[in-house]
Amino acid sequence: MLDWISRYRSDRMLKIWQDEEKYRIWRDIEVAVLEGWAKLGVIPQKIADEVRRVEIKPEEVKQEEFKTKHEVTAFVRVIEKKVSENARKFVHLGITSSDVMDTAFSIQILRSIDYIVDGIRLLENVISNLAEKYKHVVAVGRTHGVHAEPTTLGVRFLSHYAEFRRVRKFFLFARENLRFGKISGAVGIYNTVPPEVEAYALEKFGLKPEPVPTQVVPRDRYAYFIVACSLLSSAIERIALNIRISQMTEIGEMMEPFEEEQMGSSIMPHKKNPVLSENLTGIARTIKSAVVPALENISLLMERDISHSSAERIIFPQVCILSDFALSRLKLLLEGLKVDEDKIKKNLEISMGMILSSRALFEMVVAGYDREKAYKTIQKASFSVVDGKFPDFKTALISMLEKEDKKIAQIVSEKLELVKPQYIDYIFDRASSMPFEIKVMKRDDVFDPEGKTIADRLRKIGVNVKDIRVAKSYLISSYKDVDSDLIDFFVNPIVEDYTVELKE
Amino acid sequence: MLDWISRYRSDRMLKIWQDEEKYRIWRDIEVAVLEGWAKLGVIPQKIADEVRRVEIKPEEVKQEEFKTKHEVTAFVRVIEKKVSENARKFVHLGITSSDVMDTAFSIQILRSIDYIVDGIRLLENVISNLAEKYKHVVAVGRTHGVHAEPTTLGVRFLSHYAEFRRVRKFFLFARENLRFGKISGAVGIYNTVPPEVEAYALEKFGLKPEPVPTQVVPRDRYAYFIVACSLLSSAIERIALNIRISQMTEIGEMMEPFEEEQMGSSIMPHKKNPVLSENLTGIARTIKSAVVPALENISLLMERDISHSSAERIIFPQVCILSDFALSRLKLLLEGLKVDEDKIKKNLEISMGMILSSRALFEMVVAGYDREKAYKTIQKASFSVVDGKFPDFKTALISMLEKEDKKIAQIVSEKLELVKPQYIDYIFDRASSMPFEIKVMKRDDVFDPEGKTIADRLRKIGVNVKDIRVAKSYLISSYKDVDSDLIDFFVNPIVEDYTVELKE
Amino acid sequence: MLDWISRYRSDRMLKIWQDEEKYRIWRDIEVAVLEGWAKLGVIPQKIADEVRRVEIKPEEVKQEEFKTKHEVTAFVRVIEKKVSENARKFVHLGITSSDVMDTAFSIQILRSIDYIVDGIRLLENVISNLAEKYKHVVAVGRTHGVHAEPTTLGVRFLSHYAEFRRVRKFFLFARENLRFGKISGAVGIYNTVPPEVEAYALEKFGLKPEPVPTQVVPRDRYAYFIVACSLLSSAIERIALNIRISQMTEIGEMMEPFEEEQMGSSIMPHKKNPVLSENLTGIARTIKSAVVPALENISLLMERDISHSSAERIIFPQVCILSDFALSRLKLLLEGLKVDEDKIKKNLEISMGMILSSRALFEMVVAGYDREKAYKTIQKASFSVVDGKFPDFKTALISMLEKEDKKIAQIVSEKLELVKPQYIDYIFDRASSMPFEIKVMKRDDVFDPEGKTIADRLRKIGVNVKDIRVAKSYLISSYKDVDSDLIDFFVNPIVEDYTVELKE
Amino acid sequence: MLDWISRYRSDRMLKIWQDEEKYRIWRDIEVAVLEGWAKLGVIPQKIADEVRRVEIKPEEVKQEEFKTKHEVTAFVRVIEKKVSENARKFVHLGITSSDVMDTAFSIQILRSIDYIVDGIRLLENVISNLAEKYKHVVAVGRTHGVHAEPTTLGVRFLSHYAEFRRVRKFFLFARENLRFGKISGAVGIYNTVPPEVEAYALEKFGLKPEPVPTQVVPRDRYAYFIVACSLLSSAIERIALNIRISQMTEIGEMMEPFEEEQMGSSIMPHKKNPVLSENLTGIARTIKSAVVPALENISLLMERDISHSSAERIIFPQVCILSDFALSRLKLLLEGLKVDEDKIKKNLEISMGMILSSRALFEMVVAGYDREKAYKTIQKASFSVVDGKFPDFKTALISMLEKEDKKIAQIVSEKLELVKPQYIDYIFDRASSMPFEIKVMKRDDVFDPEGKTIADRLRKIGVNVKDIRVAKSYLISSYKDVDSDLIDFFVNPIVEDYTVELKE
Repeated sequence: MLDWISRYRSDRMLKIWQDEEKYRIWRDIEVAVLEGWAKLGVIPQKIADEVRRVEIKPEEVKQEEFKTKHEVTAFVRVIEKKVSENARKFVHLGITSSDVMDTAFSIQILRSIDYIVDGIRLLENVISNLAEKYKHVVAVGRTHGVHAEPTTLGVRFLSHYAEFRRVRKFFLFARENLRFGKISGAVGIYNTVPPEVEAYALEKFGLKPEPVPTQVVPRDRYAYFIVACSLLSSAIERIALNIRISQMTEIGEMMEPFEEEQMGSSIMPHKKNPVLSENLTGIARTIKSAVVPALENISLLMERDISHSSAERIIFPQVCILSDFALSRLKLLLEGLKVDEDKIKKNLEISMGMILSSRALFEMVVAGYDREKAYKTIQKASFSVVDGKFPDFKTALISMLEKEDKKIAQIVSEKLELVKPQYIDYIFDRASSMPFEIKVMKRDDVFDPEGKTIADRLRKIGVNVKDIRVAKSYLISSYKDVDSDLIDFFVNPIVEDYTVELKE
Repeated sequence: MLDWISRYRSDRMLKIWQDEEKYRIWRDIEVAVLEGWAKLGVIPQKIADEVRRVEIKPEEVKQEEFKTKHEVTAFVRVIEKKVSENARKFVHLGITSSDVMDTAFSIQILRSIDYIVDGIRLLENVISNLAEKYKHVVAVGRTHGVHAEPTTLGVRFLSHYAEFRRVRKFFLFARENLRFGKISGAVGIYNTVPPEVEAYALEKFGLKPEPVPTQVVPRDRYAYFIVACSLLSSAIERIALNIRISQMTEIGEMMEPFEEEQMGSSIMPHKKNPVLSENLTGIARTIKSAVVPALENISLLMERDISHSSAERIIFPQVCILSDFALSRLKLLLEGLKVDEDKIKKNLEISMGMILSSRALFEMVVAGYDREKAYKTIQKASFSVVDGKFPDFKTALISMLEKEDKKIAQIVSEKLELVKPQYIDYIFDRASSMPFEIKVMKRDDVFDPEGKTIADRLRKIGVNVKDIRVAKSYLISSYKDVDSDLIDFFVNPIVEDYTVELKE
Repeated sequence: MLDWISRYRSDRMLKIWQDEEKYRIWRDIEVAVLEGWAKLGVIPQKIADEVRRVEIKPEEVKQEEFKTKHEVTAFVRVIEKKVSENARKFVHLGITSSDVMDTAFSIQILRSIDYIVDGIRLLENVISNLAEKYKHVVAVGRTHGVHAEPTTLGVRFLSHYAEFRRVRKFFLFARENLRFGKISGAVGIYNTVPPEVEAYALEKFGLKPEPVPTQVVPRDRYAYFIVACSLLSSAIERIALNIRISQMTEIGEMMEPFEEEQMGSSIMPHKKNPVLSENLTGIARTIKSAVVPALENISLLMERDISHSSAERIIFPQVCILSDFALSRLKLLLEGLKVDEDKIKKNLEISMGMILSSRALFEMVVAGYDREKAYKTIQKASFSVVDGKFPDFKTALISMLEKEDKKIAQIVSEKLELVKPQYIDYIFDRASSMPFEIKVMKRDDVFDPEGKTIADRLRKIGVNVKDIRVAKSYLISSYKDVDSDLIDFFVNPIVEDYTVELKE
Repeated sequence: MLDWISRYRSDRMLKIWQDEEKYRIWRDIEVAVLEGWAKLGVIPQKIADEVRRVEIKPEEVKQEEFKTKHEVTAFVRVIEKKVSENARKFVHLGITSSDVMDTAFSIQILRSIDYIVDGIRLLENVISNLAEKYKHVVAVGRTHGVHAEPTTLGVRFLSHYAEFRRVRKFFLFARENLRFGKISGAVGIYNTVPPEVEAYALEKFGLKPEPVPTQVVPRDRYAYFIVACSLLSSAIERIALNIRISQMTEIGEMMEPFEEEQMGSSIMPHKKNPVLSENLTGIARTIKSAVVPALENISLLMERDISHSSAERIIFPQVCILSDFALSRLKLLLEGLKVDEDKIKKNLEISMGMILSSRALFEMVVAGYDREKAYKTIQKASFSVVDGKFPDFKTALISMLEKEDKKIAQIVSEKLELVKPQYIDYIFDRASSMPFEIKVMKRDDVFDPEGKTIADRLRKIGVNVKDIRVAKSYLISSYKDVDSDLIDFFVNPIVEDYTVELKE
């Protein structure tokens, strides 16, 4: 057992990716295929029922695989041994290993995405609460690490909230592009299994048939998932970096939770380190690196080579576990995060008013001062404060201005106060009501007269249209996230389907 | 001048990314901002007009930058020198460098995306033509590089077509997520410039305001573009690999164009090498690697650090030029590609009928044979052909079967002919009519009574909705790509906007 | 348990990296430190003896870590509970967690290197045997995948042999740069532990003190190891690619071992796929990607941040297991590799003599023909063979030449035979006797009069030399690898140390 | 022209990698090959002399390449046009394009390495001077960004010095492994050119023949160089990170040079940002990413495919220019670095004595206190200081201790002063005298009786030795770097060769 698996633990992800679960999914796919054949009248339905009752133990497959050197043939053999003579000959009828493996792989990834999307949503809530809580806590904005202008701590959190929401949006896009399976035989052209069987079987898992498969589902689809996780990990890395630097002794604006019996160092009892954020940084680094093999996996030879397989066996479970763990660890961290508002206030004062230099520039220009001259005067004032010639920026600037233009000096003097930034509410309103879209369409098996009419007309005037389906979209800017209650208002599930997308 | 820039050349991309063009865009942004201020009555409109007429030479900026060590301040200075005293003081009023730089960066990338999307579309056409042309040319399908089952050359091309279409879909998604600029001042909270100025200015470039900026547009947006290019390069790598291997002397199914005076080697005059594909492989490799720094660029410190800047200055132009070049080179290659149908036919025969082993298995099982026994018999028959004991697979198998079950031997014997794969038309029809969606909504400034009514109702029952806009979606499965003619049928441009998305 | 760990299995590597072993090493380091303190008289020697007898169970540490959130403090607590009151207070005296962790990490990696270096050496033997076996089996050389000139299969193997030897050389270099530990306290400057204790403790593990540590051993050292593994995996990828392509049905020159009950496909019983090589390719891909986080780990903040830690916990065991597994799998593959000499011979004939085009060019030029004219004539002859106008290249060329210059036609005609390449023995001799260097020096504690004399002289003339030690190097070109017997001839272990380096 | 090339400029590197220079090197290689043939009497020497006088303009090659689609054949044609009829037929005799290209590529990289190694050495001097200057300036050591224990600023610089020295060591190792060229014909087995010609030609450029080439020099050698640059860039990234964080307003210990007319922001005149370090960070990021394609380039098909070529054309010049630029920019930055010793002193006091907690723990334990109890007491004392219950750590701890054990309270009280770390001189002495090794051997053409005697003896007892050469190594620990004066003491250039290696 590798240490990291128990250390960066996600039981629910581990479960998805363990052999027990995988073989259960494989069996369900075999069953669905048999049902498909039965629907076509090729085999009796009871064959499927029999196979459905088979339980497979990973050891059994391992044992057979030792002989066949091929996991699916081993798996099929195990089933064959457990069913009646009549059933055994039809198991795996007309399909190839990848039909089972890739369809199952898609299912495993889609489930993983659901967990991750849930995790992101929970995290968004936590961050959004932090943003609300510190909405108007003025803090110094730092660019290049150097004091810039005032902002608020809430806005800083809000920018993380918006980033995680974008990541969730990306996952939903990836999800849409991953809802594909493939049951089309050895080279993907239905030589030994007809499209009807595939359609029937995939539909049971909410999957669509790969439009042009080779032996496999094309690997760019799976790469989307790894890319999504790498974007997630970059978002995690950014907030972790902010916490780490905010906890530096000199800055001291935030602190990670520190428990009663916790120890920061084996030799320095006084230490409280941002170890959770540092830890998340390294995990993010590791997740991100999976993007390299995921991209290399795409370019397979002709109808497929299997070079992607070993890489996928390693990186997919790993990325899933790490991503899920990281989300929950980050949530925990943020829930226990301590903010030192006093220190934030003190830090604001450190640069002795210079953080109002852009305000000064603006006011001087608007009041009629030449821009470049204003810039230089302010710069001179600032540097003279740093050199200790003036106690603070305002004093320095006004004293310089008074020599030049008393009126402007007075105007600037009045404006040069640290006031609450005025557009905070505006930004929060915008960010907390970012739209989502509910799109409602007739179910595939429900007739769509409007679509048909349009299609007919278009064909008449020579546009080579095969089919048109009409849907209605509701772009909703709301202060609450989409949920099933809301969807109920828009969708009639008996005849309608729907999709939800995040928008900005 | 570096050799590769003239070698892997894209003049149109180079133009977008050269200083001349960049400074032109910067100037236009400054102008738009001034117009915004003028709209608010803060400054006179003629200031904007004056700045609009300024021409900036890169050398001028370089010269100033030598002093200021800051590109935007240098750029502003150059403008200041070229306008009247009255205008100069208002140039760059209330905004920060990143307001100009990032907004321009988005514009440059969006233009680059347009070129690339065009390039992909052209390529899709070429590949789709190849697919049509070789739709029914039966070729051996190879998995693991080894003869598997018959497929057709057309289907193989079709899988590349579908892949490039997915890449285009991804670019359109990336595009949507990149349509953001930012004119909100030093730390992104409108301390010295109000949202109205931003809204006015960005709208001129078709951009939306970044919902929660820091000093900069968040770098994950830009990473989407690099990811898109890396997916593009993986698609290129895959088709290049297929051509390279198909041109191997022993396989010889395809050959790159070879011109009259061309030379394949400086010492072996007989050589015709797949150099274009190999070359594309290396270019794809290089493009892909940009994903690593693009992801590292996301995690910036607090309101921003500028570590991303130098990396972006290098990788973005490079990735754009290489992607555009690769698309046109690949198009050229495919337009001149030679297919040797004789060799394809000969190769089909090499495995002496064994490529029908899955068909044999299927027929034996359906005819009542035990699956595992069938498998072993076929395997034995195949290997005995390889060992030279039988002239071909059918002879071997039938001779073995006749000893066991004459009836089945006869059934199998009848089915075991190489026939045209029967679902090719089905697959082509599906692939060539993959749907796109036209979504039509009222323009932002047009009243939407339906949306308002729904929103009002929802509010009444306590759902905290800010705004609802209703749109109509047409999911069109068509044998032609979306174009402006088609859109005209659906959209009334006076009061309506629309978006197009690729679907599967 | 993740599937891949049992699938790509290396028990010996797993053992090194499991907690049981890690805590054993940690304990040994704590003991060595205590002995160091005892040597200085600060504590009694029996303390060390007591700690040496402590056995630590991973669960015990886990339990404490649950409270302390710090692995080393948890580990120390476990020891404290198991020793006498007198001993417990001195455990971990004056040292910090990283003193234990990094020193142990170096030890674990060094042991892993030893296994890998052994594995490479064994692999070199297998490949070198294949090279010898097929030394003179003429095969077509392929560049760009296209027939070029004759070579021999043995030379192709030899090039892999040479590559693995270079990889081994790199590992030995990495090893040398990794022989560093660090026991210098919280910020690496011996604030609470003197250099004498470090020197004593590290020496027990064959390690040297990090010359300028921060809290940690600098991470570039550890990156060397990951780089070494990525070079190893590239070498594996190359030979795997060659096998995969050689096993393509049309080429058929080599075939991976295929066992009695093995199955190549779940649906196509005739298949024999190069799955081992494909599998190695994916594993290589995964190993290589670790180089990205390994490089990111280097840039730590000031005296250290701990962002590297989680990444290392994941990638180091993984890379070790995968590398070791890949080496043994590749060895197995190569030991069972089947070479089809008939097919190799047949393939040579496929290009109908064109593979002698470079020979023809050479002979024509030497015989007085203009180079460019010769090139064009040969090119024309070749292409006309491809077009079916001539049965083979020689006939085509001679017939063309005879029209131009009968004498040269005759000369060329005589030389244009496929003969055994003449420098094969030369190349083999060179490759199989690549030199290694044994360097013999006096042990550190043995006086070196020659060094001292030189140092004294240099100091006299003003060269600021601290110390000089003289050694003797033997650069040995031998047909056998260095082994302990050979070393015995050169080294007197009582007073001398030695190092061995691979050279080229 | 891409902006970055003039922005991150290295003229000397650009020169190496431009076509003018490349074709000059190519010509010199062609000349050397002709001389080799002349030596063997195959052609007259004057042919070489004639070719040596040829000047090649890049446009000329471009023009021909337009026709041949092959750079070397184009290049050869240009030469052919410029020499006499007699000479032209022998140009490029018996060799293939890669003989010229790869040999030249090695030469270009070796020259680049020399520049980089020089750059590192200069940088080491600058950093080592900073280390000396601030050797005893006590600064707070920060681990996890949090105050840990006192260290000195000099030691922090020293750790960067040591890292750059290790990078230089790696470059020297890479250099040794890159000193290989290849002139062995189309598939690397001397089919049309004998080893004597290669040996002669390569020796002129200080290169050795590739022991087992394919058509090309194996790409792992070239990957070493990119790895070296990526290690360099990691070292740069680390020091840049330290400067960036040290310049944060709250920390303020260091500041990058800021020139008279410089501007830190276009809107905030007070800003002084660490832009040089940030810029270096992004450049480092970009350099590092080249390691991905460099590793992918290794796995070439059989006797070679040319997929590496386009990637190399892009990344090698780029990495060289960026590395060289980064070195000189960093040097400039460090030469102008401002250190604020006052702020360093103030920061030391911020944690109110807690940075002595490890010292306290040590003293309490040695004085007889139970370790775990001591830890808890100190932790409690520290946290109560943070909570404002005590003015500083010492007061807090002593007050707690006095309640428990007056004697120990007194002992600890005496030891708990911030004193100069005592091992700084020790560390500096060790670091500034890290050894190098001068190895002196007889020149290849000078008889080595000792080696011969040993070899003879070994052969007599059955050890299959081909050759032995004996050398003498001087491991010199010196306070100055190795230079030619020093080498003169050890080497007699008439009969001896030497190598220099860095050691630790």
